[in-house]
Amino acid sequence: MSAEPGPSPYDILFEPVQIGPLVTKNRFFQVPHCNGMGYRDPSAQAAMRRAKAEGGWGVVCTEEVEIHPTSDLTPYIELRAWDEKDLPALSLIASEIHAGGALAGIELVHGGLNAPNLTTRETPLAPHHLPVATYGYPPVQARAMTKEDIADVRRWHRQAVELSLRAGYDLVYIYAGHGMGTAQHFLSPRYNQRTDEYGGSTRNRMRLMRELLEDTLEAAEGRAAVACRISVEEPHVPDGLRREHLEEVLSEIGELPDLWDFVQGDWAEDSNTSRFSPEGGQEQLVRGLKQLTSKPVVGVGRFTSPDMMVHQVRSGVLDLIGAARPSIADPFLPNKIRDGRLAQIRECIGCNMCVSGDLTMSPIRCTQNPSMGEEFRRGWHPERIRPRHAPERILVVGSGPAGLEAVRALGLRGYDVVLAEATRELGGRVVKEAALPGLSAWRRVVDYRLQAIAGLPNVEIYRESRFSADDVLEFGFEHVVVATGSSWRADGVARWHTSPIPIGTGAEVLTPDHLMRGERPSGRRVVLFDDDHYYLGGVLAGLLRHEGYDVDLVTPAPLASAWTEQTLEVEKVQRDLLLSGVRIRANEVLMSVAADSVRIENVFTGAPQELPCDTVVMVTARLPEDALHQQLLAAAANGSLRSVEAIGDACAPGTIAAAVWSGRRYAEEFGAEPGGRGASLPRREVTELWSPPGPAPRSTLA
Amino acid sequence: MSAEPGPSPYDILFEPVQIGPLVTKNRFFQVPHCNGMGYRDPSAQAAMRRAKAEGGWGVVCTEEVEIHPTSDLTPYIELRAWDEKDLPALSLIASEIHAGGALAGIELVHGGLNAPNLTTRETPLAPHHLPVATYGYPPVQARAMTKEDIADVRRWHRQAVELSLRAGYDLVYIYAGHGMGTAQHFLSPRYNQRTDEYGGSTRNRMRLMRELLEDTLEAAEGRAAVACRISVEEPHVPDGLRREHLEEVLSEIGELPDLWDFVQGDWAEDSNTSRFSPEGGQEQLVRGLKQLTSKPVVGVGRFTSPDMMVHQVRSGVLDLIGAARPSIADPFLPNKIRDGRLAQIRECIGCNMCVSGDLTMSPIRCTQNPSMGEEFRRGWHPERIRPRHAPERILVVGSGPAGLEAVRALGLRGYDVVLAEATRELGGRVVKEAALPGLSAWRRVVDYRLQAIAGLPNVEIYRESRFSADDVLEFGFEHVVVATGSSWRADGVARWHTSPIPIGTGAEVLTPDHLMRGERPSGRRVVLFDDDHYYLGGVLAGLLRHEGYDVDLVTPAPLASAWTEQTLEVEKVQRDLLLSGVRIRANEVLMSVAADSVRIENVFTGAPQELPCDTVVMVTARLPEDALHQQLLAAAANGSLRSVEAIGDACAPGTIAAAVWSGRRYAEEFGAEPGGRGASLPRREVTELWSPPGPAPRSTLA
Repeated sequence: MSAEPGPSPYDILFEPVQIGPLVTKNRFFQVPHCNGMGYRDPSAQAAMRRAKAEGGWGVVCTEEVEIHPTSDLTPYIELRAWDEKDLPALSLIASEIHAGGALAGIELVHGGLNAPNLTTRETPLAPHHLPVATYGYPPVQARAMTKEDIADVRRWHRQAVELSLRAGYDLVYIYAGHGMGTAQHFLSPRYNQRTDEYGGSTRNRMRLMRELLEDTLEAAEGRAAVACRISVEEPHVPDGLRREHLEEVLSEIGELPDLWDFVQGDWAEDSNTSRFSPEGGQEQLVRGLKQLTSKPVVGVGRFTSPDMMVHQVRSGVLDLIGAARPSIADPFLPNKIRDGRLAQIRECIGCNMCVSGDLTMSPIRCTQNPSMGEEFRRGWHPERIRPRHAPERILVVGSGPAGLEAVRALGLRGYDVVLAEATRELGGRVVKEAALPGLSAWRRVVDYRLQAIAGLPNVEIYRESRFSADDVLEFGFEHVVVATGSSWRADGVARWHTSPIPIGTGAEVLTPDHLMRGERPSGRRVVLFDDDHYYLGGVLAGLLRHEGYDVDLVTPAPLASAWTEQTLEVEKVQRDLLLSGVRIRANEVLMSVAADSVRIENVFTGAPQELPCDTVVMVTARLPEDALHQQLLAAAANGSLRSVEAIGDACAPGTIAAAVWSGRRYAEEFGAEPGGRGASLPRREVTELWSPPGPAPRSTLA
Repeated sequence: MSAEPGPSPYDILFEPVQIGPLVTKNRFFQVPHCNGMGYRDPSAQAAMRRAKAEGGWGVVCTEEVEIHPTSDLTPYIELRAWDEKDLPALSLIASEIHAGGALAGIELVHGGLNAPNLTTRETPLAPHHLPVATYGYPPVQARAMTKEDIADVRRWHRQAVELSLRAGYDLVYIYAGHGMGTAQHFLSPRYNQRTDEYGGSTRNRMRLMRELLEDTLEAAEGRAAVACRISVEEPHVPDGLRREHLEEVLSEIGELPDLWDFVQGDWAEDSNTSRFSPEGGQEQLVRGLKQLTSKPVVGVGRFTSPDMMVHQVRSGVLDLIGAARPSIADPFLPNKIRDGRLAQIRECIGCNMCVSGDLTMSPIRCTQNPSMGEEFRRGWHPERIRPRHAPERILVVGSGPAGLEAVRALGLRGYDVVLAEATRELGGRVVKEAALPGLSAWRRVVDYRLQAIAGLPNVEIYRESRFSADDVLEFGFEHVVVATGSSWRADGVARWHTSPIPIGTGAEVLTPDHLMRGERPSGRRVVLFDDDHYYLGGVLAGLLRHEGYDVDLVTPAPLASAWTEQTLEVEKVQRDLLLSGVRIRANEVLMSVAADSVRIENVFTGAPQELPCDTVVMVTARLPEDALHQQLLAAAANGSLRSVEAIGDACAPGTIAAAVWSGRRYAEEFGAEPGGRGASLPRREVTELWSPPGPAPRSTLA
């Protein structure tokens, strides 16, 4: 924070790196990542990438960019470089990255076996006749590529390179990672058993990749650097790539690209959550590969610790610190390290909420960084917020994720803020959930906000201060934010049941609130009914099982914690639960609870079953703790308060990400010109019509 | 076909119907239906709707249209009426419907509990605090609406009505059907246990619907008709709507809207496939309701038979023949009935391929009508095709869905076409699959094409004519289309295994080809391994079980026939299989086959299991039957042929829809100006940028 900082242990992170014809300003490299905005929301993406460039990343890349209609990844919404029509969007993103001060990278992909082409209806192309290898089992088979097809793919790839250069990109990627590109499908013994010169030996299998690299280098003519993103292994599948194949690749063409970007397996294997893998979890995977090439190497590991980053460089594992998620949680991570503001780093918690955006075709969001995806849409910035409109004083009741973010952002705006927390500890649900197995990194949501608030002299914090409506009025507050959270229901109501189910006398029913307070089942046999479907049901079933309980997890979904499919965790959740001995009773619903048993029914047939059981744990719906809110609304109605608003779970129970966003929204909109309820429509871009509408008939025939 | 047709039994279908201020030209009513194009592809949708208007539908409607950011149905891509930005797209669609000669309807929806708002991040609104009720379990809860919220929803709905009128729509829908709208959530005892004047009695629960109808009528001021689409029941869920509730609704407000549109339950219950429900399957549901109102009534039933339609009207069930799927399969259905061209009707087969477009966010497609979704994108028309470019003669080898469509469309263009079929029967895979339980309607894919071809003097058909490459050359053909289909693999290769699995000596392995030829397992214990995941695995497991075999269905997916989720069948498939006694072994993969057992492994843990088994049925990948194609390619290379191309499954095994499309594409593109391989990029619309790209930095702050 001083004007002239002396040498820092992190200076090595700010050394320039030569990547072919480029020189980066530092070692911070935002590797390509999807964002659920793609071709649909180009300005939203451009503003998001620019925020990262402003925050100090030396290189900022796009997500995978489809190079051709045979590489159509529908239903997923990525960028496209099919033809000239895509140039404006691609150019905008590159120019915004440049305006932010970074080099712009683009990740070109021919999806091949990974592209079901549901929009274009083209036949997917692959080394062999095989069903497409993507999510959701679309009934589409790829066809075996002929030599002519290979020439086509090379030509299309080259055209996309040329388009990328015209759009202004500095770095062009060949994508052979995550099982998502034709280059990898050819390289992998899993997908390539061809008998021509493109199959057989590793040298033959890498031929297409080599050709694509050579084509790209030739097309780039030194005007752009050329990177290769490649999976080091394909674990957990038959006949997958092994490290020895990659070592052979590096011995053959290690000097061909200007940069190697090493990833692990498929996306779920690469983007492990903190629940299943620590920071730097790929060090062993990547260690030693850099020594097989003179070219710089980038890799990831959910790096948020500058010491860990320095270690990666000093120990010769990586040249460039790759990051997707840490750059999402904190676009200004590099600048904060540069300026010695380490405590201000908003560390990624490794929850993969960001990933869910891509997988649900919705704009990327982040638990830690509520401005993510809102830079263009709502004008939110990861670090800045406009000053207060007037010297107002605001009471925030409750210090969970919504309350803390509201306090932080209102405080940053310069308002006088009073935070009242009923208990001794700040953090609400986050500190409770972070105490559960695998979720300790989630605590960072609180840690970041507490350090930020600590630096704000205009924020007062009162612990162990349970405010009643009368207290609020007595203290003379005029604006109140109610962030009192929610509690879990114990009556079975959620998605399947919308009315309480029969619960007999003597039955013991616990909720996550009980378990997180330390209460435990009195008997050994536990039925956990999960009609929530995100992480908590699986986490609690695992916890109880590890404590020795006999656990049946009953869920109307086909899998335990079914929504963790969107965070790439669902397979790991099943594996861990099954290996621990939890019985997953999928497609079953809890119908009633008796003292020593429960009745469940199959969701398809209604076939009933009785399970012996001492205790039921309900992971179902939640109810807002909104008593204070209701009382204050009444007070506001009679003029005793100027404004009162519930945020976060106290308004509507949701994810921690939604709670943080809700707190931020309150702070952003406080004091804004009133536009009426529901008037704050975010900025959006819509499809440009081929020809303007009008009454004149148009032929639909070509 | 005569110039002056006399009275027809179908004249009643062409009577005008008064709908409030409107008079339709006939009784054919394209009810609202989704299409996977929505706000993303407005011109593609406009051209699709126009084709139906041209084809004689008196009223053509949009899909559900989101009225506000709190009604954001992401990931699904429907139309929006959020504000002025949506006006051009909405106007284009209305004007194209008008240009085609129909009245234009728009279905407005406040999704409420059905809208997770993943894009806008707004809190969903519902009668109570409840998790959102939509596909995929997003971790989002709605909040209980206050009186102010109710006033907001009414205001937003009214604004959307006004926008719809400005866009030119003649008919505006209140949507209270399929569990998808707030009006239904309030009406349903399942979702509404409110204690204010909007809850409790049926009269109270219908209050919001009544208000929305009154608002809409007032806003419309007689300039547009007002329709109400409503679920008659909510079966198979606790506390659902029952017919008695609907009867009370009709007794109270039966005269309020200008039109009633009755549907069944949720979408899966309403849009039953032919596998699970016959044509007119909703007659009993709707019968008698019309008698409770003087207003006209529309309803659906996958109607393709004009006699059935007449019966609906004459027996007082319906006033208007509603159709979504039949209008997709044949946009010209009304005109064909009008003109007495009944044999030319392209009848819906009830496969719900169309539905899969919406559920996979991809443009709607249809098994019967390959032009569906391609009207704008490729300029294809459901009835017309441009004349031949030259007097060429074309040989089509194989009479499956691809071959027949190629013959039909090439014949229509005026080329001389020769069809050679190796067997006695025309139809390929379609006739084989249509012989399986539940799939008989699929035969219509062949029937339609055979009648069309029969009217073409320029088409010659040779049955029992297995052509070799030498035959082709001897007969002097210059252009050859190879449509020889595919065969099912017996070695386990599909998605999980990409190399053959171990199969021991003495093991009996059958494929769908064997079963469809009438072969049967020699023992009683059958393991069916489904790594295909569409309908066939489930159909064959059911068939074998009903024939008395003991069947284990082993699948690496969490459900049997997992992809039938996209055709709204997956729950019915599980139910029928389980009730029939098939054991569904989900999340398991077949690893090896011995003479009297198989080894399977859990996909998550690798835990092995041995199952006793006499016969394995592999429903895995397919291989193109492309020997002839390969021989002919060699001949083309040495100049003996001018062109040869494989289409349909002979190119890449896929759905019947993909095969038909492939045949059509060949016919559409034959003789077109050469643009190089892969040059036929369909027309598409892209997002209009908020501001043009450029080097000048733009602030991302509001």
